[in-house]
Amino acid sequence: MSLHPEWQHNPRSLHREWSFKNFRTALAFVNAIGAVAEELKHHPDISFGWGYVRLSITTHDAQNQLTEKDFTLAARIDQLG
Amino acid sequence: MSLHPEWQHNPRSLHREWSFKNFRTALAFVNAIGAVAEELKHHPDISFGWGYVRLSITTHDAQNQLTEKDFTLAARIDQLG
Repeated sequence: MSLHPEWQHNPRSLHREWSFKNFRTALAFVNAIGAVAEELKHHPDISFGWGYVRLSITTHDAQNQLTEKDFTLAARIDQLG
Repeated sequence: MSLHPEWQHNPRSLHREWSFKNFRTALAFVNAIGAVAEELKHHPDISFGWGYVRLSITTHDAQNQLTEKDFTLAARIDQLG
């Protein structure tokens, strides 16, 4: 599984940021992420506002280490566009 | 106008955090905040994930100083619940 090159990671988490033209479109993307998260039962930490969405993905249940679930979620989010 | 006592502020921004029972209910609250933000044309910075929503409100157009628009938005968000 290969992720979009804009993902950054450290041993504990994956990060990516997206830009949007306003608040409404950023919130729409947040909701699309939320639908994927509920489907996978794996939930990111999301920061967003006017024109941006930032995501942090880790496995809280695994003492905040990266697991396969994190990469699966990131790959699915990449498919959102 | 008086705000809920859980709001914290510094000279540049207002902050408040809420707890929720899961991701879905946190995202629902985020969407409720988003609707108010669009109505007021004043948009907070939102961080949320499983069980929490954190809000930061400032007036980016005023060099990130607090303005009346920030307090109006906070008061309207208080009314959401």
